Amino acid sequence: MTGFSADRAAAAELDATDPLAGLRELFIFDDPGLIYLDGNSLGRLPRATAERIGQVVRDEWGAGLAGSWDRWIGLPMRAGDLLGEHLLGAAAGQVLVCDNTTVNLYKLASAALDARPGRPVVITDDDNFPTDRYVLEGVARQRGLELRLVNSDIDTGLGMSELRAALAASGGQTALVSLSHVAYRSGAVLDLASVTAMVHGTGAMMLWDLCHSAGAVQVELDASGADLATGCTYKYLNAGPGSPAFLYVRRELQDQLRQPVWGWFGQRGQFDMGPRYDPVRGIGQFLTGTPPVTGIAAVEEGTRLLAQAGIGQLRAKGMRLTDYLIALADAWLAPLGCALASPRDAWRRGSHVCLHHPEAARIAAALAAAGVVGDYRTPCRLRLGLAPATTRYVDVWDAMDRLRQILEAARFAPFHDEGLRGAAPPGQHSPAAGA
Amino acid sequence: MTGFSADRAAAAELDATDPLAGLRELFIFDDPGLIYLDGNSLGRLPRATAERIGQVVRDEWGAGLAGSWDRWIGLPMRAGDLLGEHLLGAAAGQVLVCDNTTVNLYKLASAALDARPGRPVVITDDDNFPTDRYVLEGVARQRGLELRLVNSDIDTGLGMSELRAALAASGGQTALVSLSHVAYRSGAVLDLASVTAMVHGTGAMMLWDLCHSAGAVQVELDASGADLATGCTYKYLNAGPGSPAFLYVRRELQDQLRQPVWGWFGQRGQFDMGPRYDPVRGIGQFLTGTPPVTGIAAVEEGTRLLAQAGIGQLRAKGMRLTDYLIALADAWLAPLGCALASPRDAWRRGSHVCLHHPEAARIAAALAAAGVVGDYRTPCRLRLGLAPATTRYVDVWDAMDRLRQILEAARFAPFHDEGLRGAAPPGQHSPAAGA
Repeated sequence: MTGFSADRAAAAELDATDPLAGLRELFIFDDPGLIYLDGNSLGRLPRATAERIGQVVRDEWGAGLAGSWDRWIGLPMRAGDLLGEHLLGAAAGQVLVCDNTTVNLYKLASAALDARPGRPVVITDDDNFPTDRYVLEGVARQRGLELRLVNSDIDTGLGMSELRAALAASGGQTALVSLSHVAYRSGAVLDLASVTAMVHGTGAMMLWDLCHSAGAVQVELDASGADLATGCTYKYLNAGPGSPAFLYVRRELQDQLRQPVWGWFGQRGQFDMGPRYDPVRGIGQFLTGTPPVTGIAAVEEGTRLLAQAGIGQLRAKGMRLTDYLIALADAWLAPLGCALASPRDAWRRGSHVCLHHPEAARIAAALAAAGVVGDYRTPCRLRLGLAPATTRYVDVWDAMDRLRQILEAARFAPFHDEGLRGAAPPGQHSPAAGA
Repeated sequence: MTGFSADRAAAAELDATDPLAGLRELFIFDDPGLIYLDGNSLGRLPRATAERIGQVVRDEWGAGLAGSWDRWIGLPMRAGDLLGEHLLGAAAGQVLVCDNTTVNLYKLASAALDARPGRPVVITDDDNFPTDRYVLEGVARQRGLELRLVNSDIDTGLGMSELRAALAASGGQTALVSLSHVAYRSGAVLDLASVTAMVHGTGAMMLWDLCHSAGAVQVELDASGADLATGCTYKYLNAGPGSPAFLYVRRELQDQLRQPVWGWFGQRGQFDMGPRYDPVRGIGQFLTGTPPVTGIAAVEEGTRLLAQAGIGQLRAKGMRLTDYLIALADAWLAPLGCALASPRDAWRRGSHVCLHHPEAARIAAALAAAGVVGDYRTPCRLRLGLAPATTRYVDVWDAMDRLRQILEAARFAPFHDEGLRGAAPPGQHSPAAGA
C-alpha cells in the first residue's frame, strides 16, 4: 500500500477524504461502538429498507390487501432489472429476484445439463461454497453424470492452469462448469470473461455464483459472455436475513433452456389456469411460485442505495480497505503468527480477507468479546468482511489493534477456553448463515 | 340452514353471539367500510405480525446483525412444529416452513417418485390448482413417467369413484397421487384419511396440497396416514404476500426419501463445509438454502393467533358463514341467474364459496366498486372467501345484498362495460396471486 502509515490518525484522514463516507448515514447503527466486519455474511440494515418494509406491510398488505398484487406481480422482474442495470452489467429482461441461491443453482444447473445431453462431466472446484458443490453433486447424480472437483488453493483460489487442465482432461465431455466469482473463504476473484471464454471453448456452459461479489465487485455479465448466474442479496446488497436471491439467464438462452420447477408464475396466461404447462417466453419462465414480496422490496432498496454510490467507487473503496487491513496485518500480526490467507493483489481479491492462525476460532471469539464481529471459517481462518458502504478505515485500524492486543496477550498466556472472554466462536455456533 | 332469517338483524345477532368475534381486534382494519372476502387469497394483517416484523427487522437484524442467526437458525423447524401441533395434526419434527408451495411440491413429488421406481404413473385431477398440475407434469416428464388427470367436477370436486377407477385402471402402476385437500375454485373438500387409504392400497404415495385448508379446516396429517403435504401461509394463516410455504414428511419416510435440491441447510454438520453432501437425519434434509427469516416469523405469529381460537372453532364458524352465504344466495340470487358452484354440504366445503354467472368477471368488478372484494376465477365464477377469523355475518349479508342490487340493476340494463363501475375484474388483472 503506497504511503502506508500505521498511525490511527492516518486512518482517520482516509475516512475524512473518503467520497463514500456519507453512505453510513443511510444505515441504522444501533451500537456505534460495535465494529462489524461481517457485512459479507449479513449486511447492515439501510434506513430506507426499514421504512420500505414497514410500508409494504402496513400500507400495501394491511390496507391494500390482495389489490396490491397489481404492483407486486412485476416485482421479481423490476428488482432484477434494477440489479442488472446497476450492479450486474446485465441489460433488462435477464435478471429475476426469486427463491434462494440453492434453489436457483438447482434450476439453472439442471437447465444447463438438460441442454447439453451426451456430455457426462460437470466441473466445479473443491473450495467452492458447500451449497454449490452439493447442488451440483445432486443434479449430476440425478442424471448419471460425474461431478469433478478441481483442486483449488485455499488461500489464493482456483488457478487458471488447473481449470484449463481439468477441461482438457474431460476432452469436450464437459456439460457445465460452475464456479464462484469471489471465493467465500479466501475472497479470491476469478475473471468472469476469461474463464467463461475458456469454458465456452470446450462447448460447456458457464454458471457463476455471485454471492460474494454482487454489490462489492464489478460484475459485467453481458460483456463477459456468461450464460447463467445466481447470488444472494443478504450480504453486500443489504436486503436482510434470508432475503431472496437473484438469477441471470443470458437472453439468447432463455427460450432454449427449460428449468425443472414448472410453476404457475412461469406460465403463459397465468390466470387462464390452462391445462398444461406452457411457459412464457423470456426470463419469466425461471420463476416458480408466489414470490416473497417484502424480501424483493428490500432488494430494490439495497440496490438503489448502492447504485447511488456506483459500483466503481464501492469496488475502489473495498480494494483500499482490504489493502489497508493487509498492510496492518503484515506490520502487526505476522510477527505474532497470523498469516494472510487471501490473495495479496487487490484486483484478485473481493471485499473480505482471511487471516490464518491455528487458534483462529478462539481468536474470533475473543475479538467478538472485544467488540469486533468477524467470523470463523474452518480450518483455522478468521474472516473479516469490509463492506465498502459501511466500513471506515478507523474501524479497520481499531479491529487490527484489538486483534494485535489479543495475540500479544496470548504470547504470555497460551490460548485456552478460560483465558478468553466469549465461548462460542462466531461463525460456528453463531453460524452467520449467510456464508 | 336451520332457523335462517334473511333480515340483517339476524346477521347482527349471529355476530353478537359469535365466540370468535373478538379475533377481529387482533387484526389491522384500515378501512372499516371495506368488505374483504378474499382472505383465501391473501389473509389480513394481524397486529402482532406487523409488530413482530418490525422487531425482526429493527432489533434482530438492525441491532443484532449476524449474531441473530443463533435464534434464526431453528426458525423453519420451530414454526413448522407450531403449525403441526395447532393446525396440521402433526407431531413435532415433521413440518418445516421454507421455500414456496411450488418448490416444495417439486421437492416432495420428486422424492416420492424416486422412492417408487418402476411405477410409471402419476395421478392428479384436472381441476387441481395449476401449479400442482404443472409441477407434476414436469417431474413426470423428467423421469419419462405419465401424468394422468382424473376428471373432476368443477363445482363439487373429485369423486371418490372416479379416483378409485383411475387407480384401478393403472393397476398397481401408480407411483404417486397428489391432490388438493380443498379445491381452489369450488372449495370441495376431500377426506384425507379415506383418500390416503385408497391410494396406499395400490402401493402409491400420497402428497396433499393444503393451501386452501390450513387454518380453515381441520387437518389431521398424522392420523390420516398421509405421506407428504405442503401448503402456503399467505391465505388463512395471514403471513403476508409471498410468505414461505410449509411442508410435511411423515417421520417414518424421512430417512427413506431423498429430495433433489441438495442444499447446505440440509447438510449434517453444516458449518464443517464438508466435501460431499451428507444430509441430516430427519425433516431437516428437506431444507434447501438460507431460509426467509422475516416471512417465517410472520408464519409463527399467524399460527399463534389461530391457535388461540382453536381450529375446531374456526372450522365451525367457516361452515356457518358459508352456509349463511349460500342461504342468502339461494333466496336472493338464484332467481337472478346466479347459481351455487360449490358443494352444498358444509362438511364437503372449505371456507370459500363460488357462485356461477355468465357475467361473473363484470360482476366481480362491480362488486369491488361497491366495496366488496372477492375474486373472479375462470370460467364464469365469483369466488368469495370467508376467513373465519376476520369475517362477520353482517359482512356476508351486506355483500349478498350489494350483489343482489347489482344483479337486479342488470335485469333492466344488461351487462356491458360502461354500465358498471370499475373496469378490470379483480382476480384477473389484479391476480390476487395467492390463488
